[in-house]
Amino acid sequence: MFVPKRHQTVAVRVGGVMVGGGNPVRVQSMTNTDTANAESTAAQVAELHRAGSEVVRVTVNTREAAAAVPEVQTRLHDMGVDVPIIGDFHYNGHLLLRKYPECAQILAKYRINPGNVGKGANHDKNFETMVQCAIDHQKPVRIGVNAGSLDQELLNDLMETNAKASVPQDGQAVFLEAMVQSALRSSGAAEEIGLPREQIILSCKISKVQELVRVYQALADRCDYALHLGLTEAGMGSKGIVSSAAGLAILLQQGIGDTIRVSLTPEPGSSRAQEVRVAQQILQSLDIRPFLPQVTACPGCGRTTSSYFQVLSQEVEKFLTSRMPEWKKEKPQAAKLQVAVMGCIVNGPGESKAAHIGISLPGTGESPRAPVYEDGEKVCTLEGPTLAKDFLERIEAYVARMPQDAIGCDAARSDTP
Amino acid sequence: MFVPKRHQTVAVRVGGVMVGGGNPVRVQSMTNTDTANAESTAAQVAELHRAGSEVVRVTVNTREAAAAVPEVQTRLHDMGVDVPIIGDFHYNGHLLLRKYPECAQILAKYRINPGNVGKGANHDKNFETMVQCAIDHQKPVRIGVNAGSLDQELLNDLMETNAKASVPQDGQAVFLEAMVQSALRSSGAAEEIGLPREQIILSCKISKVQELVRVYQALADRCDYALHLGLTEAGMGSKGIVSSAAGLAILLQQGIGDTIRVSLTPEPGSSRAQEVRVAQQILQSLDIRPFLPQVTACPGCGRTTSSYFQVLSQEVEKFLTSRMPEWKKEKPQAAKLQVAVMGCIVNGPGESKAAHIGISLPGTGESPRAPVYEDGEKVCTLEGPTLAKDFLERIEAYVARMPQDAIGCDAARSDTP
Repeated sequence: MFVPKRHQTVAVRVGGVMVGGGNPVRVQSMTNTDTANAESTAAQVAELHRAGSEVVRVTVNTREAAAAVPEVQTRLHDMGVDVPIIGDFHYNGHLLLRKYPECAQILAKYRINPGNVGKGANHDKNFETMVQCAIDHQKPVRIGVNAGSLDQELLNDLMETNAKASVPQDGQAVFLEAMVQSALRSSGAAEEIGLPREQIILSCKISKVQELVRVYQALADRCDYALHLGLTEAGMGSKGIVSSAAGLAILLQQGIGDTIRVSLTPEPGSSRAQEVRVAQQILQSLDIRPFLPQVTACPGCGRTTSSYFQVLSQEVEKFLTSRMPEWKKEKPQAAKLQVAVMGCIVNGPGESKAAHIGISLPGTGESPRAPVYEDGEKVCTLEGPTLAKDFLERIEAYVARMPQDAIGCDAARSDTP
Repeated sequence: MFVPKRHQTVAVRVGGVMVGGGNPVRVQSMTNTDTANAESTAAQVAELHRAGSEVVRVTVNTREAAAAVPEVQTRLHDMGVDVPIIGDFHYNGHLLLRKYPECAQILAKYRINPGNVGKGANHDKNFETMVQCAIDHQKPVRIGVNAGSLDQELLNDLMETNAKASVPQDGQAVFLEAMVQSALRSSGAAEEIGLPREQIILSCKISKVQELVRVYQALADRCDYALHLGLTEAGMGSKGIVSSAAGLAILLQQGIGDTIRVSLTPEPGSSRAQEVRVAQQILQSLDIRPFLPQVTACPGCGRTTSSYFQVLSQEVEKFLTSRMPEWKKEKPQAAKLQVAVMGCIVNGPGESKAAHIGISLPGTGESPRAPVYEDGEKVCTLEGPTLAKDFLERIEAYVARMPQDAIGCDAARSDTP
């Protein structure tokens, strides 16, 4: 297996979840309910956590929101959901954290946006208040810079300095440097106030892939703080998924990123949990972490004019997704299972042999029988109306037999000599 | 703009489309109709081409399929569709190309899978016949290796040699090396037969991201043939999109890939053209090629408890997609347009200013008025029931004013000093 070497960072404890320092890359998410509504917020935190979000962020934007955090926590406890809750603060965090100490105590981490902590002299004072709260409550903070709310005073300073330089850089480069400096200066200030670096995570989110790559490469070059990674405001539908996967994959492949969030705009009425699944899919596609059995399915072509293999692929996907929560208890290694559902003879037997379990459906004009392969060996041939049911049963039986340290599918593809 | 530096390759002409050699990275796709059915095949070729597929591949798997290619071409001509058609051959390509010279003449490129051209002495003979057809008809070929149909004789040879080595490599590494060698030996053989390297494109598709990255890095290191890039059998739904985007982004960011295909398994009943849109989104997310105006939309959080911004984001997306074909004629630079639809004050004004045109909707408790920014300046405030319509009109007017060499949104974000 070719797994990217990780950029070394300082480990940070967020509630019961370790971030950075060689720990698994964590998946996180954020609610879009009104935090003041403890019932709907707790329900969505639980939904996101069940989908796989290992920490969940909520906005704490008003007194009502801060006051509701204890009830959110109680409701989660009553539901049996144990997940660190992160508070997202802008403008008034210094007031809310001081005024609502129970909220400050319950939250497992505070997100501070150094562009939104006040202007002029207030900036440093408010920032210090929030950091002092983190010290008092022994909480980590994320210093979360965002291109849409970059510290304008810092940006103006750098722009002026650049204008006077003998060889000025272009405005885009100065803007990105201002993001990096906002994060590094703020974390430096937090350390000076007394926050240990084991309680500091950084992020510098921006909505364009190439800029994200530049900014995070600079962060990784210049510090060893744990890094939270995400393309902000990625957008809707497949555009949001593609740009998130592209940006995060490039950086994760370079070992950069200790925790990730995928910021998708949900289609109206669709589930918030999709961003969690996409985050998991990004990590799994890169062999960084397994979450769910993977289905290799061919795209179909003129050799597969029946759409049956599309239907079967979908049935298999649904089956694996529905079974995984149960398998997780006794057979967590099922997350590494590789299933192939192939549509014809061209690559069907080859890919089916390379998977743990695979089926090669007949293409147009081929005999209407589907050989099944397990660990590279043909084990049976399925046909007729019970084909799908029979194949799912074989998957279930395969999982039941999976040893603790399940082999990668590559071992199945070709024996090591 | 940070655009990845391209790996230098030899340019290949495919019909009227130049591939490699510094030409734009091309988007391609493949039909899933029965090629023998000229009517449905021509209709799908046209659909894929209208969606943006710059060349379209069809399987040529039977005599009926080969015989139907001229009618497919005629039908496309009658529809006014001019797109190079590629023939995909396995097992019997040497027979079909000789027996159906009109098909061989119409196809703009032949895909040869060196794992599926016959065994033993037939392998080289059949391969030579196909290459000779390409020489006779002055057509390029793609030597398309696929993990699912790798030349087993070559693999066995390499496995045996490896087993005798003093320090054997693991089986996975040998398998990937066999893929690369299959492509390079076949292209070398094709050149010896007399096919110029200006008529050779290579691909080595495999379904796992890390293996794809390894194989293509090796190809780019060891040759300068134009490379067709694709993660094969990526699968269904967001899993297929994520793994394709992850794999292709990592390689494209390294400058590798002259033409791409995204191999999604369509959900039953869904459009084949989705794979074309995803391919375009991958290239656009990396600033490699613009295709469609981009919408930066925030994911929403507890500050945006109205879902109105989701609805507006979707309306804007639909509007841009529907208008682009028209804009393309007079205002192709609209493909570079960046629109922001933001949900609250935190990053709303910042991201709206960074876009060409952006709207910052009110979050919970904010005044129900939405400032609109154009080129970083606030130009008006929208509210009330005509907000969406008014904003779309402003986009239309903005596009009408766009100069030929439209500025990037980064220039709008922060002036170069």
